[in-house]
Amino acid sequence: MNRKLRMGMIGGGKDAFIGAIHRIAINMDGQAEMVTGALSINPEIAIVSGRELFLDEERIFTDYKLMLEKEAAIPANKRIDFISIVTPNFVHFDPAMMALEKGFHVAIEKPITFSLDQAKQLKTKVEETGLQLLLTHTYTGYPMIKQARQMVKNGLLGKIRKVYVEYPQGWLSNFIEGSSAQAAWRTDPTKSGIAGAMGDIGTHAFNLAEYVTDLKTIQVSSNLNTVVEGRKLDDDGAAFLKFDNGSTGVLMATQIAAGEENNLKIRVYGEKGGLEWKQEDANSLLVKWMNKPTEIYRAGSSYLSSFATSNCRTPAGHPEGYLEAFANHYRNFIFTIRAKMNNEKPKEEWLDFPGVDEGVRGMAFIETVVASSKSNQKWTDFIV
Amino acid sequence: MNRKLRMGMIGGGKDAFIGAIHRIAINMDGQAEMVTGALSINPEIAIVSGRELFLDEERIFTDYKLMLEKEAAIPANKRIDFISIVTPNFVHFDPAMMALEKGFHVAIEKPITFSLDQAKQLKTKVEETGLQLLLTHTYTGYPMIKQARQMVKNGLLGKIRKVYVEYPQGWLSNFIEGSSAQAAWRTDPTKSGIAGAMGDIGTHAFNLAEYVTDLKTIQVSSNLNTVVEGRKLDDDGAAFLKFDNGSTGVLMATQIAAGEENNLKIRVYGEKGGLEWKQEDANSLLVKWMNKPTEIYRAGSSYLSSFATSNCRTPAGHPEGYLEAFANHYRNFIFTIRAKMNNEKPKEEWLDFPGVDEGVRGMAFIETVVASSKSNQKWTDFIV
Amino acid sequence: MNRKLRMGMIGGGKDAFIGAIHRIAINMDGQAEMVTGALSINPEIAIVSGRELFLDEERIFTDYKLMLEKEAAIPANKRIDFISIVTPNFVHFDPAMMALEKGFHVAIEKPITFSLDQAKQLKTKVEETGLQLLLTHTYTGYPMIKQARQMVKNGLLGKIRKVYVEYPQGWLSNFIEGSSAQAAWRTDPTKSGIAGAMGDIGTHAFNLAEYVTDLKTIQVSSNLNTVVEGRKLDDDGAAFLKFDNGSTGVLMATQIAAGEENNLKIRVYGEKGGLEWKQEDANSLLVKWMNKPTEIYRAGSSYLSSFATSNCRTPAGHPEGYLEAFANHYRNFIFTIRAKMNNEKPKEEWLDFPGVDEGVRGMAFIETVVASSKSNQKWTDFIV
Amino acid sequence: MNRKLRMGMIGGGKDAFIGAIHRIAINMDGQAEMVTGALSINPEIAIVSGRELFLDEERIFTDYKLMLEKEAAIPANKRIDFISIVTPNFVHFDPAMMALEKGFHVAIEKPITFSLDQAKQLKTKVEETGLQLLLTHTYTGYPMIKQARQMVKNGLLGKIRKVYVEYPQGWLSNFIEGSSAQAAWRTDPTKSGIAGAMGDIGTHAFNLAEYVTDLKTIQVSSNLNTVVEGRKLDDDGAAFLKFDNGSTGVLMATQIAAGEENNLKIRVYGEKGGLEWKQEDANSLLVKWMNKPTEIYRAGSSYLSSFATSNCRTPAGHPEGYLEAFANHYRNFIFTIRAKMNNEKPKEEWLDFPGVDEGVRGMAFIETVVASSKSNQKWTDFIV
Repeated sequence: MNRKLRMGMIGGGKDAFIGAIHRIAINMDGQAEMVTGALSINPEIAIVSGRELFLDEERIFTDYKLMLEKEAAIPANKRIDFISIVTPNFVHFDPAMMALEKGFHVAIEKPITFSLDQAKQLKTKVEETGLQLLLTHTYTGYPMIKQARQMVKNGLLGKIRKVYVEYPQGWLSNFIEGSSAQAAWRTDPTKSGIAGAMGDIGTHAFNLAEYVTDLKTIQVSSNLNTVVEGRKLDDDGAAFLKFDNGSTGVLMATQIAAGEENNLKIRVYGEKGGLEWKQEDANSLLVKWMNKPTEIYRAGSSYLSSFATSNCRTPAGHPEGYLEAFANHYRNFIFTIRAKMNNEKPKEEWLDFPGVDEGVRGMAFIETVVASSKSNQKWTDFIV
Repeated sequence: MNRKLRMGMIGGGKDAFIGAIHRIAINMDGQAEMVTGALSINPEIAIVSGRELFLDEERIFTDYKLMLEKEAAIPANKRIDFISIVTPNFVHFDPAMMALEKGFHVAIEKPITFSLDQAKQLKTKVEETGLQLLLTHTYTGYPMIKQARQMVKNGLLGKIRKVYVEYPQGWLSNFIEGSSAQAAWRTDPTKSGIAGAMGDIGTHAFNLAEYVTDLKTIQVSSNLNTVVEGRKLDDDGAAFLKFDNGSTGVLMATQIAAGEENNLKIRVYGEKGGLEWKQEDANSLLVKWMNKPTEIYRAGSSYLSSFATSNCRTPAGHPEGYLEAFANHYRNFIFTIRAKMNNEKPKEEWLDFPGVDEGVRGMAFIETVVASSKSNQKWTDFIV
Repeated sequence: MNRKLRMGMIGGGKDAFIGAIHRIAINMDGQAEMVTGALSINPEIAIVSGRELFLDEERIFTDYKLMLEKEAAIPANKRIDFISIVTPNFVHFDPAMMALEKGFHVAIEKPITFSLDQAKQLKTKVEETGLQLLLTHTYTGYPMIKQARQMVKNGLLGKIRKVYVEYPQGWLSNFIEGSSAQAAWRTDPTKSGIAGAMGDIGTHAFNLAEYVTDLKTIQVSSNLNTVVEGRKLDDDGAAFLKFDNGSTGVLMATQIAAGEENNLKIRVYGEKGGLEWKQEDANSLLVKWMNKPTEIYRAGSSYLSSFATSNCRTPAGHPEGYLEAFANHYRNFIFTIRAKMNNEKPKEEWLDFPGVDEGVRGMAFIETVVASSKSNQKWTDFIV
Repeated sequence: MNRKLRMGMIGGGKDAFIGAIHRIAINMDGQAEMVTGALSINPEIAIVSGRELFLDEERIFTDYKLMLEKEAAIPANKRIDFISIVTPNFVHFDPAMMALEKGFHVAIEKPITFSLDQAKQLKTKVEETGLQLLLTHTYTGYPMIKQARQMVKNGLLGKIRKVYVEYPQGWLSNFIEGSSAQAAWRTDPTKSGIAGAMGDIGTHAFNLAEYVTDLKTIQVSSNLNTVVEGRKLDDDGAAFLKFDNGSTGVLMATQIAAGEENNLKIRVYGEKGGLEWKQEDANSLLVKWMNKPTEIYRAGSSYLSSFATSNCRTPAGHPEGYLEAFANHYRNFIFTIRAKMNNEKPKEEWLDFPGVDEGVRGMAFIETVVASSKSNQKWTDFIV
């Protein structure tokens, strides 16, 4: 098999944000093409959006169930290979389950579901079907994060002792629920789930920390706040983490840090040295040593791990960014699917994309961090 | 008309560098699809490359002339709309002329041609045909460069007094002509033209300076060097510039700055303040003032000019990079073509892509800077 | 009165670290001269150190009590005006009390005493005597920290909502208690007190947070760790803070962040914007806004508050550092003393140095953060 | 001999800038004390300034000749050891010559004299007397510049191929000659000499380039401009440099870069790698390599050369700045004088301060760069 994969999208109409990001990520490498979409439950938006994306009229839907039914019914050489689910959190689980049942691979926005229980059900379904599931935790798609993980894995820092991960944003500093659709659903517990900032960006920080260090969180002590008056969910919080190797971490996530953009940052310290990476300066990885100069590892350089290199498109000094990180996940997901279609063994580097296991841990994080914040006890166990 | 444009590529086989960049740039926004290619004069490379790009077998060529003939002969609803020329410099002029004659729009790598004379002929042809020509001076596609230009245009800095533009790279620090195909043709006067570093990256710096300031260079005093033994063209140089408003500038370009990646930087100072932008930190524009704090303008922010905003895809804090800058030029080029196809007036923001005029000035820069370096006179006139 | 003040030093022999820093800070502005010292309890070190500092032989002591007795007994026109106490923590209280009783002003290293109770006694003594006490919390001597405080005070950020303060160091990543005198006493509970990293650097972070925001901490939830095997006190920790205006903060202090130097950083967010300052880039203060470019306030600039300006010595662009910050406290302390000697009212800017109140709060912080870490309860009240 | 050196100052009254800097630099390390001064030719300023500096009334002068006569006449155990000359350029030569003749060591602001010819006479006098002369080219006092020089000397970069040195300031962007005494004399050819910006800051850039690389300039091609209307000397300029090893450089100095502070920067590239240092981030030295991560060398670190280490006062992470760089020169000068007084051999690290040779080369630079700018020939020989 040597062709572009075909995909359909659920959600992501022209009034949405993240759907357009997914489409750019899918388009970039020319490995897949979008052929169908249930882009909105609003028919007018669905149609206009579909036309702007040059979809065939008969493959523009408002009802994802209908779309999945129709796709399942058409000949294999026209049928989609995977769907991307880019709806608000409360509309993740059902379309994902249905798509898997129809035999389609699934890409899905984080957090994976509305509840931990749904996440576990989805995991069972993925395992039953043997299909691929991509959870778009964008930030682990950055090549310097791949590099960081490999350096930790290879023991260059020695045993990990401390992790700081933080994700300050400022866009929810005011009560904009009335004017911003993005703000409205993200702060609405019926659409977003039990957590606000912790679900939206805390999960990214959590995923990043576990990905880079390969440690598992075992206990959490958190303090969540709703800073902006009238808001229904947390918009700020922090948590102490205990990891399974005995080390600790601090996780901070806030959406009321007025003036901040998307300032995700991780620092990891081991016995011998430390790593520092900032999303807003994504092509550099600082590696700090005892008694030696700090080193700046750079995306696109010759000396990087294959996991980093295979996620770069350009030589060092040509900055790649958020969209490329996103595209890396899709490319690895697609390469894995295609390899399996061809009965080939996917490269280890391709298999390194976030999936349903990360989804389950993310939902467990949300449930634990919310429970801890309500508790008077210092520590709450992290139970998956 | 509401469809993706169709395009073909000349050059850009799997052994090349810049062709892949063009394809990503074209793919990213889903506004065009590649349907044909004369990707290499080596048949094996041409075929393998075409298949990897999922081209139809019958649309894979080794001879661009044949490709253009065939495309011109097929029905309009299948035929390509534009070609991208990503060959070495000495194979720019002929395919561009032929494509224009066949009625295709043209995108072309810089420098536009092998000589100033060719560039002028191409300009005449573009004007005759009324077709669009995109010259991919990548760096003016960055949103913060658009912002810089608008701020200068709007007089925020007052009269411009000084320009510093520099482009240090280190990749040609050693004599790698034998092992690197990229190095080989770029340093070969029969393929690259009369300038090495000044043609390859000096032209970018020159274009950037004139774009941001809207000034025209009128005199040059340069010092070009061939630092690495055995090399046939300059690999290092600098030039003083005199501009048409009486101000001056310094341009530096080198490929022997060992350890540098792609460190293009521009600084512009006016009576009231200055601008500073670095390609490797492309999402920030420093704006410096007398007696006020320096400001950091950021891509994706709400306060930017429409010229910057229409060249961003994500909110502030999600870094966009080199590939997006490249894609911006293609998107504007495609939007312009489609508007004209639809007899609509393209938006001013779309028309803001580099074209044949920038190509002619770039070739004049090459000829002037080489002539000045050979001259004992301090200043050499810049004649277009 | 128009003369240099005379001072004596307790501790700070040639084998010590911080004493030399105090001397540079005192020397720099030529407002005081060191005339006596009990620089070490080791006679040889005391004598050699005194000679290297060009002290008169008869004013070199090993016993600070004797020094204070002698100084109190000599004529007023030769007698010292103040002493600087730069001994380990367990030798702060006694010499400070004695010096005050003898009528000398006192400068003292942080933390002010060995226990909160001692700090309160010292406060009573300072109030009784009317003498000046300087507590050298260096970092609030930086001009951009003065600027930050004034901007918060003037309401430019609106109500403060979130504070992040962190102080990572790496110098105690290994067990160096055997080879480093600095490490030995700082990790010895009989010399340092009940806290290690939290006493040594956590107190700086705490002081900085309260100084910049003018908020008072009312509750703490902490997690202290002893990471390096065999160490007797905490070398790592973090704390959630609740402030008296209802806002929260996160404080992190560690001495096992391998590869870190002295990376103190504070971020403060209000309703309208945020501030960010890093000690290792001390001359810049980032001011972040909603919907406006971030501003970089720079030490030495014309637009700063008088509190910042009076703590700068050079125009913008001539970096001032740690020693100048230190010297600022001494200069303000000396100017205050001299003004009072001359029955003049000290300028408000001079009075802005840390004193016994900050000392008491620092000791309360140590006691609270240690108690909280041992507690299973989430929150522990901060009681002064 | 074990005592503080005694010094006197010529110029540096309370209305001046650089005198206060010299005093802080001298005070900082407690190795010398100021005992006399001819601080101003204005008697009122001289007296008030002297009193503010706590000078004895009988050692406050308005006439430096009288001061030098008197000092020469008093007993050796009271007499000054050296003088600091901090007057405008046209009052450097005479007091320096007289001081040397009276047997005093001399510290002097750059540029060393008003003309190259004077500089050569002064050199002869220094050699005749065997006295020490310190020329305060501040920037070579920074520890990371010492480190850079040693790394180049040790061949770590291989043969040097390219040097970029730049010094943009913005403080003369407007015609402030009427309101600023600093601006007035610096732009007055009768007080400053034949060059403006090139004399004031171009000489610093030139000195820095030759110091770090140990290369000698042999030819210059320059372009000087007077940008601000009404100004009498150059306020902007650039020069190409040819060095004695066949390599080239670009030097830029401007005082009309509106919004710039004191942005001195040097980059040096050799066959194997490059160095980058910025005065405004003085504690870091970037070391760039082919095919290896860039390294950040940091002041105060354990791995530095003895030349760097002996010019640091604090461990890494406690920023030292401009005043410490200045103080380093004085400290080395004083240590050298004292060693010679004691018939000891000064350490190599102490002897590494700028002196009369650097002064002569600086004046030759001024004369060459001005001559080249007036010439229509591309290159002008650099003749000392």
